[in-house]
Amino acid sequence: MNHLARLRRLQRDLPENKLDLLLVTHLPNVRYVSGFTGSAAALLVGERGTTLFTDGRYIAQAKEEVKGAKVVIASKSPSIAAAEWLAAQRKKSGTLWLGIEAESLSVGLRDRLASGLRGKARLRSAPPLVERARMVKDADEIRRIRHAVTLGASLFRVACETIKPGVREVEVAAAMEYEARRQGAEGMSFGTILAAGARSAVVHGRASSARIPRRGFVVCDFGVILAGYCSDRTRTVHVGKPTREARQMYEAVLEAQQSAIAAVRPGVTAAEVDEAARSALRKRRLAEYFTHSTGHGLGLEIHEAPRLAAGQAQKLEPGMVITVEPGAYIPGRWGVRIEDVMVVTPSGCDVLAPEDKELVVI
Amino acid sequence: MNHLARLRRLQRDLPENKLDLLLVTHLPNVRYVSGFTGSAAALLVGERGTTLFTDGRYIAQAKEEVKGAKVVIASKSPSIAAAEWLAAQRKKSGTLWLGIEAESLSVGLRDRLASGLRGKARLRSAPPLVERARMVKDADEIRRIRHAVTLGASLFRVACETIKPGVREVEVAAAMEYEARRQGAEGMSFGTILAAGARSAVVHGRASSARIPRRGFVVCDFGVILAGYCSDRTRTVHVGKPTREARQMYEAVLEAQQSAIAAVRPGVTAAEVDEAARSALRKRRLAEYFTHSTGHGLGLEIHEAPRLAAGQAQKLEPGMVITVEPGAYIPGRWGVRIEDVMVVTPSGCDVLAPEDKELVVI
Repeated sequence: MNHLARLRRLQRDLPENKLDLLLVTHLPNVRYVSGFTGSAAALLVGERGTTLFTDGRYIAQAKEEVKGAKVVIASKSPSIAAAEWLAAQRKKSGTLWLGIEAESLSVGLRDRLASGLRGKARLRSAPPLVERARMVKDADEIRRIRHAVTLGASLFRVACETIKPGVREVEVAAAMEYEARRQGAEGMSFGTILAAGARSAVVHGRASSARIPRRGFVVCDFGVILAGYCSDRTRTVHVGKPTREARQMYEAVLEAQQSAIAAVRPGVTAAEVDEAARSALRKRRLAEYFTHSTGHGLGLEIHEAPRLAAGQAQKLEPGMVITVEPGAYIPGRWGVRIEDVMVVTPSGCDVLAPEDKELVVI
Repeated sequence: MNHLARLRRLQRDLPENKLDLLLVTHLPNVRYVSGFTGSAAALLVGERGTTLFTDGRYIAQAKEEVKGAKVVIASKSPSIAAAEWLAAQRKKSGTLWLGIEAESLSVGLRDRLASGLRGKARLRSAPPLVERARMVKDADEIRRIRHAVTLGASLFRVACETIKPGVREVEVAAAMEYEARRQGAEGMSFGTILAAGARSAVVHGRASSARIPRRGFVVCDFGVILAGYCSDRTRTVHVGKPTREARQMYEAVLEAQQSAIAAVRPGVTAAEVDEAARSALRKRRLAEYFTHSTGHGLGLEIHEAPRLAAGQAQKLEPGMVITVEPGAYIPGRWGVRIEDVMVVTPSGCDVLAPEDKELVVI
């Protein structure tokens, strides 16, 4: 990972945004810019120099991981330590503007930061500078995401082997999560969704103690974290012989997913990809049952910019990594969702691990 | 769970804190007060009435779960919807004070809330009213925590069966997590810590791909979520025959834990419990290697008030549920931590699942 280049870019962004300094407090952003993976940190980025604040648990780790920034070990909250350190350094008069990450910093912490500064600098909500940079992944990041997606995709085999009438949803999730860990995943990127029978119509049906019925869809939505990066994948299988109507439902969602994937290329807006999925479902009179957005960016976090939804004017660029995951859910009856991760390329997109999309019947 | 009593208490707290309304946005707080477990919600609590805002995914679930509040299904962020709804309702003049949960609400969302209110109400950072109420658990909560701790404690057997020289830390964690899921846990309450050999000196050593050495301590710190409530437990085992020094180290930490547990009773401050552990380690010249606080409250969240650390004046009360988890860590060499969950009782405390504290040698 070229952390120094990321830091330089951020430093260049400061004057354009009328900021003298930026206090990076969102931990995935700290990791992205500095390489530090500890659970307590604040990164004070200035045009002239950058300082990472953390606590005594991370002395060795910070030394090993952080590139391009001084490290200060604090005995209090790292961001408060950063504010007090800045106030102590500051001798010149004139207003110093310190940007904060308003979407992740709490109101309470902001107020304590302001006190810690003792009038030596003024706070200003910064635009999401690091989040914007993170949208476009570099080659190292794409390699890691590819590895995570490959590992994640292999869990579907475990699901297919475990799903049987009478088995509890949570047992299937347990088997998948065990395999993920066995293959070296740091954890799951979100609570595994395993929703069988009528529960398949529940969009966020975390694996429950409900038993898999003799017949019906099972939505499996799962992801892992590997070397810091997330995967995300949904496959829907059918237990027992599917009716013609069930097959049509599955085909409609698959078609919608393929339409949306076909729309992914540089210059297209996130809203246009969403609309491609939605209009395919509209033709099958299923649009009203597609009750969530079409996808999202992913990387260090499971949900990142851009958001693929109506009204989102963000244009896709090569190197963005997104999910495309349309679904249709008939309340009380059944639901289907199909999801892949893809990298936007100069000419379209590269779907990672695109296999296993023919309807699996168990 | 008596959600109505919780809501009434919160309503009574409003005038004392010079608030007309409170917007509860921290999801564990929303769950505590209203019973709603969805992933998007804001609860607008007034003296006269309470309204829960959520989105279209949760129509059926909100109807089923929410007691004592109206439900409004919004097509935007629930807290913004709450602000706009309040502004639309508001006809009278005079200042209306709306409390916000400043420690969890982001600066960005606060600013959007203020816009949504269109001058019809003013925002004020409220004290942590719900967090304070949550510190003392009721009988239903204690029952749930007891179940979670019992399940959690059973995973130690799996750890002992799996830990062997050459096995990767992550494989041990995987086996424990599989067993947790098999027994019905919703998930782990935090990333399982499994730190073997020299890594046992790393306080937050998440299970890694490192292999367990032929000799040394293995710190196992793990917890589950069951019916919404968390467990938390640490046991340290020794692989291979422990040296006399290793045994002394273990005994010192165990003694410190027992001293701290003996100090737990109503009226004692959180700082005094911390000091009991610290002074026991001081006698063994290990105090400088005890680099974290002695414990924390737990319940719907893995870390809640009170915090058992130096300077914490909060007095313990019957019904509080806390961890006591002293440790000692010699960098590059080894570490030991022993942790239990206990309920503060009128006469002292009830340690949940206190077994397995004699040093296990594998």
